[in-house]
Amino acid sequence: MAKEITSRAENFSLWYNNLVLKAGLAENSAVRGCMVIKPYGYGLWENMQSALNQMFKDTGHSNVYFPLFIPKSFLAKEAEHVDGFAKECAVVTHYRLRNTPDGKNVEVDPDAKLEEELIVRPTSETIIWNTYKNWIQSYRDLPLLYNQWANVVRWEMRTRLFLRTAEFLWQEGHTAHSTKEEAVEETLRMLGVYEEFAKNWLALPVITGVKTVSERFAGAVDTYCIEAMMQDGKALQAGTSHFLGQNFAKAFDVKFAGKDGELDYVWATSWGVSTRLIGALIMAHSDDNGLVLPPKIAPLQVIIIPIFKGEEELQEMKIHCETIKNELQKSGISVKADYRDNLRSGFKFAEYELQGVPVRLAVGPRDIKNGTVEVARRDTLTKEVVSQENLTQHIVSLLNDIQNNIYNKALKFRDENTHYVDTYEEFKVKIENGGFIMAHWDGTAETEALIKEETKATIRCIPLEGDATPGKCMVTGQYSDRRVVFARNY
Amino acid sequence: MAKEITSRAENFSLWYNNLVLKAGLAENSAVRGCMVIKPYGYGLWENMQSALNQMFKDTGHSNVYFPLFIPKSFLAKEAEHVDGFAKECAVVTHYRLRNTPDGKNVEVDPDAKLEEELIVRPTSETIIWNTYKNWIQSYRDLPLLYNQWANVVRWEMRTRLFLRTAEFLWQEGHTAHSTKEEAVEETLRMLGVYEEFAKNWLALPVITGVKTVSERFAGAVDTYCIEAMMQDGKALQAGTSHFLGQNFAKAFDVKFAGKDGELDYVWATSWGVSTRLIGALIMAHSDDNGLVLPPKIAPLQVIIIPIFKGEEELQEMKIHCETIKNELQKSGISVKADYRDNLRSGFKFAEYELQGVPVRLAVGPRDIKNGTVEVARRDTLTKEVVSQENLTQHIVSLLNDIQNNIYNKALKFRDENTHYVDTYEEFKVKIENGGFIMAHWDGTAETEALIKEETKATIRCIPLEGDATPGKCMVTGQYSDRRVVFARNY
Repeated sequence: MAKEITSRAENFSLWYNNLVLKAGLAENSAVRGCMVIKPYGYGLWENMQSALNQMFKDTGHSNVYFPLFIPKSFLAKEAEHVDGFAKECAVVTHYRLRNTPDGKNVEVDPDAKLEEELIVRPTSETIIWNTYKNWIQSYRDLPLLYNQWANVVRWEMRTRLFLRTAEFLWQEGHTAHSTKEEAVEETLRMLGVYEEFAKNWLALPVITGVKTVSERFAGAVDTYCIEAMMQDGKALQAGTSHFLGQNFAKAFDVKFAGKDGELDYVWATSWGVSTRLIGALIMAHSDDNGLVLPPKIAPLQVIIIPIFKGEEELQEMKIHCETIKNELQKSGISVKADYRDNLRSGFKFAEYELQGVPVRLAVGPRDIKNGTVEVARRDTLTKEVVSQENLTQHIVSLLNDIQNNIYNKALKFRDENTHYVDTYEEFKVKIENGGFIMAHWDGTAETEALIKEETKATIRCIPLEGDATPGKCMVTGQYSDRRVVFARNY
Repeated sequence: MAKEITSRAENFSLWYNNLVLKAGLAENSAVRGCMVIKPYGYGLWENMQSALNQMFKDTGHSNVYFPLFIPKSFLAKEAEHVDGFAKECAVVTHYRLRNTPDGKNVEVDPDAKLEEELIVRPTSETIIWNTYKNWIQSYRDLPLLYNQWANVVRWEMRTRLFLRTAEFLWQEGHTAHSTKEEAVEETLRMLGVYEEFAKNWLALPVITGVKTVSERFAGAVDTYCIEAMMQDGKALQAGTSHFLGQNFAKAFDVKFAGKDGELDYVWATSWGVSTRLIGALIMAHSDDNGLVLPPKIAPLQVIIIPIFKGEEELQEMKIHCETIKNELQKSGISVKADYRDNLRSGFKFAEYELQGVPVRLAVGPRDIKNGTVEVARRDTLTKEVVSQENLTQHIVSLLNDIQNNIYNKALKFRDENTHYVDTYEEFKVKIENGGFIMAHWDGTAETEALIKEETKATIRCIPLEGDATPGKCMVTGQYSDRRVVFARNY
């Protein structure tokens, strides 16, 4: 099974597609660009949702739900937003089908044309701010700290499972504040939530930073992001948090009366992560044998595989393995035992390796006699025989080790593939090998565009932390505030 | 605040709308027929989702996600399904907008017309069975026990918040089986899950039964349902579970090889409940003062309101109330304290009454001295002063009492408004007062249609339990297997 996966070295892109399909995470649907998320892939998303949802609630947010459709005219209200979002999208023009004259098919009923077309939301700022207008009168109504879990549609021409699909699942937070300071604070708070989630749950080290003007969200004053490095050295934007200033409040005329009675426009933020994170998770950690999943986000943490011959041994095994399983479950570990008798255990080993189950326990007749279990960890592919006594404690601690090891490995990889470069010549050579390049830039859109044109590298972000020494732009020699992160990206 | 609510006696429909709006559950959006679900309303939905999701997992189901869009041609594949579902729906015809010549607006780009129109899913049987075709080869691939939480769109002309909206949220289970028996068993198992959920969580007594042919889901062999009685005596279908036979397998050519190697079509079920349940919850239990929520589904179970004058008393109150709050939280109770100093406590009382918070604790300076708390329950509007010692234990038990009381009250109401009727004359009189009428029916669509035409009453279901004595149809005098449930309905 695992043998059929293309190696990363051979073709990283094909390796990724192989993994997504063979591990049963998702597949393309009959609808161009839309994916079917299969149970194992959806299990990953559910774990992500659950962790993030708790973090959102802990920071004072509530969930809401706004309509799937946006009236066409709304999209044109915020000038920059319309350019960035209103173009490639699904347009609903009719609300009825009718039978074809031969009665064998259906066709659009021309009499059921909408007066104003509806757009399937590509993001919800416009419909939400149109609604907030009615919810906000005075400073006492603020802040509004809301989030929604939803599907969105952006008509993409070239799609890739999880990474870029016409429909995807995400959460979008939309908050309203009475002061600029509070809105900026919220923007950064949620950026911090994403950073913490990436680190502690996805075992993904990320750089936090602010986007350049050209990479900014359409309608934002500032777009902050977390950027992760994939194993092919490319960058992946894993989450964004936007300070929207008063742009949407002005577009939808949302004012509030302050303590002094003065009217002012409301300050806004929005922030989101999507099913794209599943793509990031795969490309950051997995190997040529299949998925490698951090235990904290894995749908299944431990698989027990009994080694047996014949029905009698199977029955004995079941009793034994169920005992182990129940013990592990009591400690909150998600665990299954695979008693299928039509598959060789070698086949099962490969299958769970492919699926990235962090820990595999194998139990044979000799183990029962000796009171032992063979414990294999997915991240290092190493095995050890351990005593069945204190097994649960051992596994709890092992899962923790694996979580940390996966993070540290990704961090080491990123550090090894992050280069400090001072000349454009060196940059052009280094960028061919991928990775992050920390270089000085003069702050102009022209230089940024030139670099992108000539090297396909973009400025991923201006980091919020790290070395902030000024210097000279590698291209123009002009003054540079600090080094920024360049990379080719997904 | 609560004073502004129309009473149920005066105008039940207006009372319902008042409650939904004033309690902050939902509101109409700028998009015709689509609602905005506000935080408090969404909190109810989240609690429903969480309970149902666990029940689905406990019965062996996994979550998945299928595309929002369905190719138009798919809808025509199952003959009955197309008549029932393919008509009033949102049709996507284009995938791009462009700027208008004056640059001030956007318009549909005529060059971006889809070859085949896409329908926003009204339900997902067709796209799912088109996919299952690739997932099922042999009996070893069965059963498939999948569910999805999703938004769906049915273009309704007359909409009402939660009860009938163009877009709504729901879950749809779609299972595939190798035998008819197993599929029927699954259909009834999920009906049982819905019945248990309605009873234990929503405090809603329901009748389980099977629909007549004319009320059946388009494409089903049998549609089972749970039917609840609202306080105006009308019935509300609160959930359905369909045995689909081999209809969709035949429409999408989904066959499996049995143990004997023989090919046969796969057997199917589908089952769903939606945000409509929030409407049911409101109309079953609430009163003229506002919502009455069963504690197990209430977003907030206990509200603490301190009675104080001035800043100094407020500070003292805070210390005291936070202690109570923390104690309650330790027992898993969801609780808040309202320290707002710009509102009278009478106003707060009315507000939480409107929102249906099951238990209100009021604490005044004298209570602190005496070590007491005033405990008010929302369902009976009664108050008692209890000692602060063992308060948590008292509240845990009180919440349980309230849950049971709400259920018993609804059950009593239903029993009092269920009538056994033997003549059509009596039926026509009784139906004017609402309620369920248990009457004999000859089993024909003609008689059913006549009764509906003349009385606006429909057969809600043929019950699975209760009195199964045969008799004579109240209209035609023909043989009747058993009494069925008639009612006017939502």
